[in-house]
Amino acid sequence: MVDYFNGRVLLQPNEIPKEWVNILPDLPSPMTPLINPMDGKPAPPEMALAIFPKECVMQEISQEPTIPIPKDLREIFARSYRPSPLHRALGLEKSLGIEGDDIKIFYKNESYSPTGSHKPNTAITQAYYAKKEGLEELVTETGAGQWGSGLSYGCNLFGLKCTVYMVRISFIQKPGRKILMEAYNAKVHASPSKFTESGKKFLEKDPEHPGSLGIAISEALEHSLKSEKIKYSLGSVVNFVLLHQTIVGQEAKLQLAKVGITKPDIIIGCMGGGSNFSGLMIPFVKDKLHGKLPDLEIIGVEPRACPSVCKGQYRWDFGDTSMKGPIVKMYTLGHSFIPSPIHAGGLRYHGMAPIISILNNNNVISATMHHQTEVIKSGLLFTKAEGILPAPETAHAIKETVDQALKAKENNEKKVILFNFSGHGFFDLLAYKQYMSGELEDYELSSEEIQKALSSREMPNIDESQF
Amino acid sequence: MVDYFNGRVLLQPNEIPKEWVNILPDLPSPMTPLINPMDGKPAPPEMALAIFPKECVMQEISQEPTIPIPKDLREIFARSYRPSPLHRALGLEKSLGIEGDDIKIFYKNESYSPTGSHKPNTAITQAYYAKKEGLEELVTETGAGQWGSGLSYGCNLFGLKCTVYMVRISFIQKPGRKILMEAYNAKVHASPSKFTESGKKFLEKDPEHPGSLGIAISEALEHSLKSEKIKYSLGSVVNFVLLHQTIVGQEAKLQLAKVGITKPDIIIGCMGGGSNFSGLMIPFVKDKLHGKLPDLEIIGVEPRACPSVCKGQYRWDFGDTSMKGPIVKMYTLGHSFIPSPIHAGGLRYHGMAPIISILNNNNVISATMHHQTEVIKSGLLFTKAEGILPAPETAHAIKETVDQALKAKENNEKKVILFNFSGHGFFDLLAYKQYMSGELEDYELSSEEIQKALSSREMPNIDESQF
Repeated sequence: MVDYFNGRVLLQPNEIPKEWVNILPDLPSPMTPLINPMDGKPAPPEMALAIFPKECVMQEISQEPTIPIPKDLREIFARSYRPSPLHRALGLEKSLGIEGDDIKIFYKNESYSPTGSHKPNTAITQAYYAKKEGLEELVTETGAGQWGSGLSYGCNLFGLKCTVYMVRISFIQKPGRKILMEAYNAKVHASPSKFTESGKKFLEKDPEHPGSLGIAISEALEHSLKSEKIKYSLGSVVNFVLLHQTIVGQEAKLQLAKVGITKPDIIIGCMGGGSNFSGLMIPFVKDKLHGKLPDLEIIGVEPRACPSVCKGQYRWDFGDTSMKGPIVKMYTLGHSFIPSPIHAGGLRYHGMAPIISILNNNNVISATMHHQTEVIKSGLLFTKAEGILPAPETAHAIKETVDQALKAKENNEKKVILFNFSGHGFFDLLAYKQYMSGELEDYELSSEEIQKALSSREMPNIDESQF
Repeated sequence: MVDYFNGRVLLQPNEIPKEWVNILPDLPSPMTPLINPMDGKPAPPEMALAIFPKECVMQEISQEPTIPIPKDLREIFARSYRPSPLHRALGLEKSLGIEGDDIKIFYKNESYSPTGSHKPNTAITQAYYAKKEGLEELVTETGAGQWGSGLSYGCNLFGLKCTVYMVRISFIQKPGRKILMEAYNAKVHASPSKFTESGKKFLEKDPEHPGSLGIAISEALEHSLKSEKIKYSLGSVVNFVLLHQTIVGQEAKLQLAKVGITKPDIIIGCMGGGSNFSGLMIPFVKDKLHGKLPDLEIIGVEPRACPSVCKGQYRWDFGDTSMKGPIVKMYTLGHSFIPSPIHAGGLRYHGMAPIISILNNNNVISATMHHQTEVIKSGLLFTKAEGILPAPETAHAIKETVDQALKAKENNEKKVILFNFSGHGFFDLLAYKQYMSGELEDYELSSEEIQKALSSREMPNIDESQF
């Protein structure tokens, strides 16, 4: 049936994209600025430059349609794991009772990186620029540990120090991720820690404090200000991180073209901060905005326990829980919102990338949400059908893909569906165990809870007329 | 320096080998027969046919120099994970202070299979043949779980039932592997279990019996005799398993040739039963035996806690601890020998594949051994240098590679070293944690212990003159 490529499309190292795709100049409404929480005005570049590597700050605001990927960086990708494979999900199609070529499901497999997800695409890049400008260390926070291990790997490649503040509850529950980070030479602290003033405050109240992503961000930010040679690193949300991930969508486009597909119908990705979803869809969105793919549907998938876009407001809010970082315009459930402890730790973020927020607000893309039991059920179906066990985050995209494929089958429609297989679930087997033994719980967020989080007196008011 | 291929050589799906390389007709001394423990005479084919899928039994004794890989089987490999990459270990070379191209280290990366090791190469193949001959189920034993998950994956691909008897101590200590097997639809029983007579005997003595590979083999064998539709599956040692793995070495040969290397100097692999080592080396051994690679050194690496070839005897012995299976001629520490609980569970086997035993006895290959602390130390060095965390088994090959590379550097020799990166260590992080915290222990086997195991009154005496 598909013996022309055996269900998997591989590229050669010289086919790694030579530039990143910048969506900023093409957005249907202008990019919103970062706001300084001190005065409510657009933050000057110096503010970002104090926190992030310089080249990343330039990319954050660049209006160039494409930004070249340095040759030596491309070579590092080629040596380690890129290009990644594109699979036709023939096993999944079969298990859904789909025959023939009317409905085709493809997935871009980002799980074949050394740390098991798409995260190294930006981690290596940030470490590369940090090394180039003479920095000595990058510091970040991590929840479940996927981003922390990505950055540890990236820093280690360039001999940079890496410090990771890991939410204490995950630090205890997921020892594997911590050991992996340490194997890459990183220093991993359970957060709250005794190493920062922000951490100490919480430890004084409760020596066994379970921590939160908000507290870990505060600690990482404070740590980054210790020296000019230390900068802060983010694994999602901001423009330059999404930019670095566009390597994924460009490869997928090339791979689809090699099997004669230039117009996929539906593109799907899970979204927490938005980086893996954006990485896949931005190169296609660009074509859609230029009129080349007018009918393309692009769907971001959230957990029902943390549906920032599906149920939040599009408004100004803090990116971090502790209100230290900049204020951004985005879909948010309120920065004080603490999501339920679902297994998809990477999707437990109260806000959403501004780029995704603008695209959704302009109806270029759409969002949907699912419960974790139905998500893990789809993940298990996928494991049996395709042989690869997805991370709980990734399984959100799979659930939506399954639904879309079955809908198309029911309606006798022809559809090409592409989703991002963002990571494997070897560190998340507990979720599958709980599902198989009937112990997995769902968390539905009530409108009252959302209303309460969004009406907190700490929500910022920004006067947009002034800029 | 190596920009001609960026340090990684990828093949296209159509470059998957079209045949397996059978070493039997080229062995320097004839293949030794399997002996029936009931009468001490060579076992008739019917005995093997009662246990294994028919096609595997035919391959076990085939004298054809090559055996075709069915086209549909090649397509399954192509859809899932083959060909696997060959990496130039530039990071490792650098960290050893090796510059330029005088010493080149390459590794074949078998960790990119869905279950993380080379095991699916034979698991898929055995399941394929089992399905073709109308079987309904395959049953096996597993220690640490790498083979069990491989076979679960393979059986699931073809809709076959899979039952795995997993050594109880591993069943408890490595819940991740069990969940992974269950995600592939396998039934996993802690061994000893209540499902077989052999298991019940041990449970009666001790309801919390920790189990052993020997007991698990007995249970799996007993289970396989329940129905003609159930056969037994092995993940190493026997000829047909080693045959299925030769896909690895053939790909590596092609990949080396693509970067201009036709004569590697040293080939290295870790060996427990011998399958990953054989898979890589057999295609090269064939050339060596035909005079094409006269200077090639081939080194199998064992743990010092279980040095079957390095310290055992080449003699007749039972393959299983419970003396139910056939008697084979091999290097052995005695079938009653229970190795210390090192992390490299896949290398804790008292014997060695007969093919490897013959090659070693004829000085075509050699063997060496290392302690687990120095092994995990090398694994950690590799993780930092190459970004991929090796399984403890694989780290044995890395330790020897490091030693050989440093020796060549010291002697100003030109060497091309190739080793098999047989699997990743995402399920074995405890070994790294213990090493990093200084808690990892070594186990040295004394000559007295070996002498004792080998002089047990249960060791078989076979009169070779009669056949």
